Amino acid sequence: LFKREVVKIYTPGLLTDLSALSEKEKNYLASLFIEKKAGLSFLELSCGEYIFTELKKDEILSEILKREPKEIILSKKLENSELVKIIKQNIPKTHLSFVEENFFKKEGLKNFNLEIFEFKKYEEGLKAANAILEYLKIYQPYLVDKISAPQFYYPEEFLFLDESTKRNLELIRNLWDGSEKYSLFWVLDKTQTPMGARLLKEWILYPLKDIKKIQERQEVVKFFVENKTLREELKKILRKISDLERLSTRCALKLANPKEMGLLRESLKYLPEIKDILEKENPLFFPKKLEELLKAIEDFSELYELLNAWLVEDPPTTLKEGGIIKKGVSQELDELLDLKENAVYYLSELEKREKEKTGIPNLRIGYNKVFGYYFEVSKSYLKRVPVYFERKQTLTNVERFVTPELKELENKILSSEEKIRNLEYELFLELREKVALYKEKLKTTAKALAELDVFLSLASVAIENDYTMPEITEEPIFIVEEGRHPVLEQIQGKEKFVPNSLEMNKEDATVLIVTGPNMGGKSTFLRQNALIAIMAQMGSFVPAKSAKVGIFDKIFSRIGAGDELIKGRSTFMVEMSECAYILKNATSKSLVILDEVGRGTSTFDGMSLAWAIAENLYKKRVFTLLATHYIELTELAKLYSGIKNYRVTVKEWNGEVIFLYKVLPGVANQSYGIEVAKLAGIPQEVVDRAKEILYKLESKSLKETKELTLAPKKVLQLSIFEMTNPIIE
Amino acid sequence: LFKREVVKIYTPGLLTDLSALSEKEKNYLASLFIEKKAGLSFLELSCGEYIFTELKKDEILSEILKREPKEIILSKKLENSELVKIIKQNIPKTHLSFVEENFFKKEGLKNFNLEIFEFKKYEEGLKAANAILEYLKIYQPYLVDKISAPQFYYPEEFLFLDESTKRNLELIRNLWDGSEKYSLFWVLDKTQTPMGARLLKEWILYPLKDIKKIQERQEVVKFFVENKTLREELKKILRKISDLERLSTRCALKLANPKEMGLLRESLKYLPEIKDILEKENPLFFPKKLEELLKAIEDFSELYELLNAWLVEDPPTTLKEGGIIKKGVSQELDELLDLKENAVYYLSELEKREKEKTGIPNLRIGYNKVFGYYFEVSKSYLKRVPVYFERKQTLTNVERFVTPELKELENKILSSEEKIRNLEYELFLELREKVALYKEKLKTTAKALAELDVFLSLASVAIENDYTMPEITEEPIFIVEEGRHPVLEQIQGKEKFVPNSLEMNKEDATVLIVTGPNMGGKSTFLRQNALIAIMAQMGSFVPAKSAKVGIFDKIFSRIGAGDELIKGRSTFMVEMSECAYILKNATSKSLVILDEVGRGTSTFDGMSLAWAIAENLYKKRVFTLLATHYIELTELAKLYSGIKNYRVTVKEWNGEVIFLYKVLPGVANQSYGIEVAKLAGIPQEVVDRAKEILYKLESKSLKETKELTLAPKKVLQLSIFEMTNPIIE
Repeated sequence: LFKREVVKIYTPGLLTDLSALSEKEKNYLASLFIEKKAGLSFLELSCGEYIFTELKKDEILSEILKREPKEIILSKKLENSELVKIIKQNIPKTHLSFVEENFFKKEGLKNFNLEIFEFKKYEEGLKAANAILEYLKIYQPYLVDKISAPQFYYPEEFLFLDESTKRNLELIRNLWDGSEKYSLFWVLDKTQTPMGARLLKEWILYPLKDIKKIQERQEVVKFFVENKTLREELKKILRKISDLERLSTRCALKLANPKEMGLLRESLKYLPEIKDILEKENPLFFPKKLEELLKAIEDFSELYELLNAWLVEDPPTTLKEGGIIKKGVSQELDELLDLKENAVYYLSELEKREKEKTGIPNLRIGYNKVFGYYFEVSKSYLKRVPVYFERKQTLTNVERFVTPELKELENKILSSEEKIRNLEYELFLELREKVALYKEKLKTTAKALAELDVFLSLASVAIENDYTMPEITEEPIFIVEEGRHPVLEQIQGKEKFVPNSLEMNKEDATVLIVTGPNMGGKSTFLRQNALIAIMAQMGSFVPAKSAKVGIFDKIFSRIGAGDELIKGRSTFMVEMSECAYILKNATSKSLVILDEVGRGTSTFDGMSLAWAIAENLYKKRVFTLLATHYIELTELAKLYSGIKNYRVTVKEWNGEVIFLYKVLPGVANQSYGIEVAKLAGIPQEVVDRAKEILYKLESKSLKETKELTLAPKKVLQLSIFEMTNPIIE
Repeated sequence: LFKREVVKIYTPGLLTDLSALSEKEKNYLASLFIEKKAGLSFLELSCGEYIFTELKKDEILSEILKREPKEIILSKKLENSELVKIIKQNIPKTHLSFVEENFFKKEGLKNFNLEIFEFKKYEEGLKAANAILEYLKIYQPYLVDKISAPQFYYPEEFLFLDESTKRNLELIRNLWDGSEKYSLFWVLDKTQTPMGARLLKEWILYPLKDIKKIQERQEVVKFFVENKTLREELKKILRKISDLERLSTRCALKLANPKEMGLLRESLKYLPEIKDILEKENPLFFPKKLEELLKAIEDFSELYELLNAWLVEDPPTTLKEGGIIKKGVSQELDELLDLKENAVYYLSELEKREKEKTGIPNLRIGYNKVFGYYFEVSKSYLKRVPVYFERKQTLTNVERFVTPELKELENKILSSEEKIRNLEYELFLELREKVALYKEKLKTTAKALAELDVFLSLASVAIENDYTMPEITEEPIFIVEEGRHPVLEQIQGKEKFVPNSLEMNKEDATVLIVTGPNMGGKSTFLRQNALIAIMAQMGSFVPAKSAKVGIFDKIFSRIGAGDELIKGRSTFMVEMSECAYILKNATSKSLVILDEVGRGTSTFDGMSLAWAIAENLYKKRVFTLLATHYIELTELAKLYSGIKNYRVTVKEWNGEVIFLYKVLPGVANQSYGIEVAKLAGIPQEVVDRAKEILYKLESKSLKETKELTLAPKKVLQLSIFEMTNPIIE
């Protein structure tokens, strides 16, 4: 007779075992369904997060890349699609699971109370969400009825960041080795709990758009910036709290083991302290958001008492081997434990009693494997044996007997171990059921603690790094006074980093064209301002003397060179695809970062494209920061009042070129390159000739400005691709 | 009493231990002295190479980088110099040893017979060479009198390759991980011996300039290409030959251990076979160079017999633990060995003899630690003990005696081990002295074998990879029909690689300007032709259908992007320094490769510089291959009859851009970028506008051509560096 083992099949997206999960990372299973729109659903089993949304098709990739799912469920029909190819290129480590098309139907969700979702409205989203449920039915069927209904989320509530922005601005990982080091997250993460760290990542990737919500967050950060003692005390307590979010989810999913339940108890122990500390403050001074958090953090002393009453001091990880439940919980268990501990005593008591009763002085209890416990009586006393002694075995000098009482005791003793194990297991399940009743409250509390943790982290970072609270406004402006790059200033040291200011508005500074030599700081300037916008909209303070940020709806970036070489084979085609995406999607409320657009092709066509792209963005009144080597583009400032030129500065000192990293209004001096060439020892005649050519190019450039404003009668049909030589096939 | 150990101090440049050396690499100690000229000296202790030369100061780096010394001796005065900074940047792993200025005097070399060197002529070179000797006096004094006189070498005999060429053309190492994989050496190396591999590297880095010498090499390669059986037989034998060059040097330096001497013997064994095989051929058919090699390879059967007679089958690595010398070499050793092997027998013989002599039946020989061997006589026979028995010890029942004979035997036995060790050591030293007498012959033979190995390797590669013998000429032309990149065709597979032809001459194709999109093959085209020139001048066959190479004196390259990013902080300054170096040093017999010059600065100054540089090179009639994005440069072809335009081809197919990798005459189509942009989904209005701008730029470009030919009256004094903002200090 075999005991059938239930084999659990873990797919990469369905891990729940805490030891297999990275603490600061979510472990998403994603599901994608495409029809008119794209439906996306994500399940984070260990955090109890089950969400879905709907997007335009060209937003799929950025949403998937933000959440970095470990596994994606897709219809088999998509197996050879272009989209799948792109997903594989971008997140090669993600496992793609292709399933039958019929996974994607809405019916499976009927069990959930989903009236609020207006079934018809979210066709694709619900189908994607259902596929996750179907998938779960196959691989973790016992969890299907334990997960909560999927929640719809509106990507439009958040500042949209395209995947290039996430990658190139190194929000979560650096570009070099893909680790968190030197990312924005690395700078901002002073969280004390795993759930805090995970939430911080989400805040970075999903900054807000609602001015009120941003300001609410700012208030809390400000409050903690100003209240040092409170901040440090709270951090000290949070440090003692385990991953409440995942622990409570494991209880809800009925997966938690005794040790995890013990950790839950330890974490709950400190919750009253948090409430105490916060309540010691005069509540009148509390920011609204913080009060909400305070309310959301429940006391749980009842649950704590329950856990404390039931669970032993240091519970094991195993469920079925006992040693879990304290005495005093179940009379039956107490008796069994007592019996197990005192078996010898009970046997000798019985022996003593029967000895007296029967008057057999050498009556003794023995044990063998065949008959179990028995009374042994020597032949000489056989006549004193009472009737309730049942003969079991006759040996040369002795006979062996059992009595009903002995048999009962034996049963109790022999089965107590197993009974204890079974009973403790049952009691533990009972306890887990009881804890599961608190699941919603625990989830809410865990979320509130995570938020508190993030606020404390942002406040600590703001103080340590000397950040300032940006003014958030609905006005279409973006002003940064002495801004810094949050990551670079950490690496270089704040005193070495040269701050730079920025002022953008819709009247005379919508598109800024930054020129100047390589390594001069153009890219840093572009990146730091995008990072400041992101930080501002996530509610964080920002690395600047002051900042005023008109809320953006989207941030796009097109950054060249570096990432092309890292990927090794990105081409001009990719560059242009990214530009096309930006041109189609940027609005008058967006921020666009363009670093060296058009560089991957020859001068004239690259320049023409950069020009046309900048012009187009300007016409749509998109805030655009454009760094370029094409000095011609600075002519745009003469044509359009809203386009301004900036330059990075350089000076010569002692025969060397010194980069000042200062960004100032104006056009970079054209002759920088020639001057460097001279310093580098290029012969004078060549330098003179280069100056001559430069002068011609420049004076010509002035003349052409006017020409370019006048569109020709008809667009020229240039024959684009030359006929290829017949030699090559 | 301690035995003083002579501690050998090994500096990185003075390693001789074969196990510490890389087989296919030389391990140079360099010395640099700078006065009017630069004196450079190199010692390769393990190969017995001690050379010196004199260079112009700006040639130092390329010469050092070619030999990649492990250690460089420099005067303390140079410790903070710019040169040292540059050396550190370029070969960070090389150990720099700063010594007193007085190391650099010529006097130390007086012991060598250096009349031929005209002491006055090579002032700096000899001083550099002497510093090596002084250095050796400190760290390996016992080698000072064993190294041969330094040899002067003329760098002008060789095709000069600047360090950028060595690095960027990946002659010996690739740019990615610095290993040999995917380098030119990796393709050409089918050598069988370490000395062959080392010589091949030297041939790659020091191609020839003398047409006769090149043709002599070509003849041998051709001979082996045509004689397959001979080639394969010789390779089979060479495979069995060890590193004869280093082994014979170790003998000459009196450093060889018995195992190495054994390897030398093994190698010598096969030399007659080589001579046999070569002599079987009809000598009339032999290329001159091969006959010379054949003559240089000595027979050494005498030396082989000597080694074979003296050395045991499998000699140990240790010198002082015996087991080295065969029997039959020394009567003394033979006796000692006999004694050692038969000690028990000799003792029992003596016992037997004395037993008979004395008539003591139970006389026996014993041994203890205090007295050594003794005769033991029981009390009962004491009266029979003869007078020559000397009493040593009295025990209860026995007395112990020694005799002079026993003492002598004991001495012999006890000391035989040590004696054997000492004697074998002495005999081994004697043998090594004898071998050292052959050092010049061995060196000559080793060199000849290395050359033979390289010829066989080049022939094998030529056949396997379908190379052709280039025609070498004094005419100033460079013609390659259907040339291929030797490394890339190996990686991609020959059938996939698109061959390209080239024709340069001094009349109408001195400077070739190659335009076309990124990834289109411009760089490959430039590099493959430079590699073909190098291969041709080293005497190798080349990857082409046919080739005609007018001998170059120097090859320079300036290759951008890639290597800048690898070094991470190379700047435009470096780019311009390299260009300045090229402009100063290129002659009408040089080949210059310029890949994207001027790219590190803004458009106009970069373009002006590239234009002026190209023009200047053309005026000097330097063969120049220039790849650029600056389409304006193609206008040069209209101004100068010797400048020609080439383009890499591209076609559109099924909505994708296909690179054809074919280089053809003409200017690349300007609208490639715009067409790609259209395919990538850039909105039509932006594409139209870009075309419009392109059209303006192009028509303007035509007009300006004439202007640029006319030099203005005076060079404009543009104010170069802007005043920097007072805010920044």
